[in-house]
Amino acid sequence: MKTRQTDRLFAKSAFPTEPESEFGFTVKTTDGMARRGEVQTAWGTIQTPVFMPVGTAATVKGMMPQSVAETGAEIILSNTYHLMLRPGPDRVAKLGGVRKMMGWHKPLLTDSGGFQVMSLGPLRKIDEEGVTFKSHLDGSAHRLTPEISTDIQHKLDATITMAFDECTPFPATEAVAADSMRLSMRWAKRSREAFVQRKGYGQFGIVQGSVYRDLRTESVEKLNEIDFEGYAIGGLAVGEGQEAMFDTLDFTTPLMKADKPRYLMGVGKPSDLVGAVARGVDMFDCVMPTRSGRTGQGFTRRGTINIKNARHAEDSRPIDEACGCPACTHYSRGYLHHLFKADEVQGLMLLTWHNLHYYQDLMAAMREAIEEGRFAAFQTDFAKWQAMGDIEPL
Amino acid sequence: MKTRQTDRLFAKSAFPTEPESEFGFTVKTTDGMARRGEVQTAWGTIQTPVFMPVGTAATVKGMMPQSVAETGAEIILSNTYHLMLRPGPDRVAKLGGVRKMMGWHKPLLTDSGGFQVMSLGPLRKIDEEGVTFKSHLDGSAHRLTPEISTDIQHKLDATITMAFDECTPFPATEAVAADSMRLSMRWAKRSREAFVQRKGYGQFGIVQGSVYRDLRTESVEKLNEIDFEGYAIGGLAVGEGQEAMFDTLDFTTPLMKADKPRYLMGVGKPSDLVGAVARGVDMFDCVMPTRSGRTGQGFTRRGTINIKNARHAEDSRPIDEACGCPACTHYSRGYLHHLFKADEVQGLMLLTWHNLHYYQDLMAAMREAIEEGRFAAFQTDFAKWQAMGDIEPL
Repeated sequence: MKTRQTDRLFAKSAFPTEPESEFGFTVKTTDGMARRGEVQTAWGTIQTPVFMPVGTAATVKGMMPQSVAETGAEIILSNTYHLMLRPGPDRVAKLGGVRKMMGWHKPLLTDSGGFQVMSLGPLRKIDEEGVTFKSHLDGSAHRLTPEISTDIQHKLDATITMAFDECTPFPATEAVAADSMRLSMRWAKRSREAFVQRKGYGQFGIVQGSVYRDLRTESVEKLNEIDFEGYAIGGLAVGEGQEAMFDTLDFTTPLMKADKPRYLMGVGKPSDLVGAVARGVDMFDCVMPTRSGRTGQGFTRRGTINIKNARHAEDSRPIDEACGCPACTHYSRGYLHHLFKADEVQGLMLLTWHNLHYYQDLMAAMREAIEEGRFAAFQTDFAKWQAMGDIEPL
Repeated sequence: MKTRQTDRLFAKSAFPTEPESEFGFTVKTTDGMARRGEVQTAWGTIQTPVFMPVGTAATVKGMMPQSVAETGAEIILSNTYHLMLRPGPDRVAKLGGVRKMMGWHKPLLTDSGGFQVMSLGPLRKIDEEGVTFKSHLDGSAHRLTPEISTDIQHKLDATITMAFDECTPFPATEAVAADSMRLSMRWAKRSREAFVQRKGYGQFGIVQGSVYRDLRTESVEKLNEIDFEGYAIGGLAVGEGQEAMFDTLDFTTPLMKADKPRYLMGVGKPSDLVGAVARGVDMFDCVMPTRSGRTGQGFTRRGTINIKNARHAEDSRPIDEACGCPACTHYSRGYLHHLFKADEVQGLMLLTWHNLHYYQDLMAAMREAIEEGRFAAFQTDFAKWQAMGDIEPL
């Protein structure tokens, strides 16, 4: 039977097998606390500040990997907890690791599984060595320790591996937050010892300490002693609110090494990203653009819209006239509204694409503003547009 | 905010607004009863025999329109019944018609709504004028007549409009089938009178008469008197089985005009298509490749596979090594298995794409075999491969 070329949609180059670079980070320019940088990895260079779309189960829900790349994404995140349960680390390894298995040619970061396991509540039990928990899929018993998490991430072939930590719940007293942070620091050391160095791969430690300055300081110092390729800020975006998050960043990022990437985990909405970049953060991940895309929420320069709202039903305008994504280039709000009302999968495909494109455009605009030394003006402008609200249909 | 070019994935040309041709049909060559032809329409030429993917609600489920075109599809089908209920014909018209609304630049065929309405059972009531029925969505009352159906299809901007008919149930006595067919013929005449001629647009009449030669003969004669741009064969693939369907085609297609396209509605599985092309059919539509793609069934040269079957879990081979679709070019059976087990939407996106690609490849191979005068050999070869069954993993 004859076959036809449909490869046009996908990178034609073979999947990369030779690491292109040692792992590294360069700050190219700064503007206030905001940094314009570049992370070098085995599988490509990442322009920072960067937003990493979430591909929990080795797929960014509703997106082909080439489409994810089309939005401008240079790195994605997958979840160790989900992948260790299904399809399992050995099976992923047999299929070539997450990147090869899912056809994602660029770098991949995996979390350590710690955050998801902690959220299991009564289904998990912590001890000094690690965590025992029951699968949310079938109730089967599993164990994660710094060593096991690091080994799984190796099998998943994560370009960036995260240290295994306890995500301190919020609110937590200073005593509870201190105990939790110190456990995470002992686990960070064990994670580092279990990490297998490979050319162009890196491992990040995670700063904990809740909203307490002394604890964050102690955590940064302990991680610096261990020495990672990068450092994440954990335990935020867990209910403390934007103000407390920004306050914590205000005293935390200045403590952190200037020559290493800083990654704020699980953040956030557009205004979170802008405020965190202003406070010296380089990397972000969040399910918000993808999850919102599945429920009908679209991001625009003027804030969010709910495409399922009846006012969009006959609106022939795109979500955002200034957006160059396929959803905005080719489809009306009215059509997207119809797709969501009819539960058609193309609705979530298009809105997810739009939202990821919006997030990548936002990051690109921030990078440009930092390069041009006008980040403060960008912030003002961003806030002004967001406050305008959506234009009503004619 | 800066925008980025993602248009590469989509046709860059503006949406066509000037009809490119009068409606027409040319038989280029024949091989036995099999015909290699070409349907000319306002919005593009269709190579026949052709398979039309089904885009019920103005979207081929799980596929971007450009991806549908990438599989080789030159025309799609949408369902009048679904679109009249949601979003409604006037709303579709306001958004530019189905093609413009959904970004499908090529021809579109709509059914008349008759088939779906008949399947509503106790929810519908037939009289000489038409059918009154209740919506499956909200129970609201609606009416379809030849005039209303034709008008709705006009508002949907169907390139090919179908006459409104009663799909005779199977089995039916000859008396019942005769009454039903004659009602459909009176409706065909009224449908034709309601049809607004536009350059490059056409309307097809539908031959009924169940499995009865005399009734099919009478139906063809009545439709020929009315004179349509093409003729469909209705009332098959409703439970009579492949043998009875082929027997009915054996005596029906020779009765039909040689210089008009012949469309077998709602058919079918790959062996149905091959057998019907051998019996002189030019056009097909069926939900099978798309619906199967959503439930994990994949079509291959060696018959079907169920990707959810455990034997695929660690299989690094593609669904079909000979297939050039993105699913087969970039992904393993093991990954597709994972996506289906994890209910990830990318699973249905990829398998739908593969199945549509398989169907289009099959049609392309048939067209080539007819051109080269070796259709009988193709049939033998096709049956031999299908009987082989899937290769077991190593």
